[in-house]
Amino acid sequence: MTKQMYAKLEDYMLSSMEDSAHDKEHIYRVLYNALEIARGEEKVDYDILIAACLLHDIGRKEQFADPGLCHAAVGAEKAHRFLTEQGFGADFAEAVAHCIRTHRFRKAMPPQTVEAKILFDADKLDVTGAIGIARTLMYKADMAEPLYHLLPDGSISDGSEDLGPSFFREYKFKLEKMYDRFYTKTGEAMARQRQKIAADFYDSLYREVNTGYVEGKELLLTLMEEKS
Amino acid sequence: MTKQMYAKLEDYMLSSMEDSAHDKEHIYRVLYNALEIARGEEKVDYDILIAACLLHDIGRKEQFADPGLCHAAVGAEKAHRFLTEQGFGADFAEAVAHCIRTHRFRKAMPPQTVEAKILFDADKLDVTGAIGIARTLMYKADMAEPLYHLLPDGSISDGSEDLGPSFFREYKFKLEKMYDRFYTKTGEAMARQRQKIAADFYDSLYREVNTGYVEGKELLLTLMEEKS
Repeated sequence: MTKQMYAKLEDYMLSSMEDSAHDKEHIYRVLYNALEIARGEEKVDYDILIAACLLHDIGRKEQFADPGLCHAAVGAEKAHRFLTEQGFGADFAEAVAHCIRTHRFRKAMPPQTVEAKILFDADKLDVTGAIGIARTLMYKADMAEPLYHLLPDGSISDGSEDLGPSFFREYKFKLEKMYDRFYTKTGEAMARQRQKIAADFYDSLYREVNTGYVEGKELLLTLMEEKS
Repeated sequence: MTKQMYAKLEDYMLSSMEDSAHDKEHIYRVLYNALEIARGEEKVDYDILIAACLLHDIGRKEQFADPGLCHAAVGAEKAHRFLTEQGFGADFAEAVAHCIRTHRFRKAMPPQTVEAKILFDADKLDVTGAIGIARTLMYKADMAEPLYHLLPDGSISDGSEDLGPSFFREYKFKLEKMYDRFYTKTGEAMARQRQKIAADFYDSLYREVNTGYVEGKELLLTLMEEKS
């Protein structure tokens, strides 16, 4: 990839990102993850890979406006159209579109090419470890969703039985399960290195808050019963 | 404190909280922290302490609307007025107001009474450990502030030299420094137990993201130079 090509793709990516520093920096993290993962793979077409990384989330705005849309499908179509308009060949545009179309976790549409597998893993890496925890917490705040829910006995639900959205639910149903879903050896190894901090953080957070609710509520009831 | 008194104070607290689950649950965490800390202190007036905990953030709405206002000062005034209207004695209302007025960190107005020291520590505990990290990340998202800034060389600033707001800056300038600021032995001991997970999380997050930016950017430049 020449610097000119890169700049063209980067400009289009930036113009497609609705919001904020977070999303833009996610793109660069995915790109850098992908280049690291690619070192462990063979026959990688770096032009396809870099273009796919830069453009993989350009359908986010459309999905945000209409949650019925899939940002991977929309993004693949937009990327295909943009690359064709810019004079890239049909094979190149289709190869990039395939990566983008399959980067979202769906059993029915797994990534087939090495570049698509690398993008998938590079994107999933950003949901592991401390960065996965940080992004999820910020997303929960954006959605005005809570950290946790209380159980009927006044203790804190660990998330595994939450009916409504919460950070703990997201951890139990998604973050905790990420580590078995990688296609490349390097991607999985990078994820495994980050697994402990995510688990430690969840465990500490649960313990810190639950201890207070269980013991504190008991102390409070005792104090109120003495007075009544 | 009788259950009726508690219910009256809780109702007033809930009616004063502008927003969301987060703020409300912060109040309960502070209350439960305070009851735990109080077990290690002598001559604690639990009615003053519980009232102060429940009402300590009722001035937040006013500070949010006008950042020139201090929520501790506003909250103390509102609590004093409410308690007096509800028939609580003048000494009680003033003791509660003192706790609220001094719960925010300011050198010129430190907490003087045992109840005020306990509230201060119980509130600061919610800025330590994993819960301190989680609340700060959610607050940064609410303010649309980023996780980090880049340095001119393309690596990630650890926060200590950031000019603009970021999560890393907040960690370096506030969260990391919390642990020396406690008035009670139990408060400090509880904070120290939580110190490692917060430091580990920050260190991991910095390492995860910075490694990518430093090595990934280098790989990218090499690839582009080969082509040009």
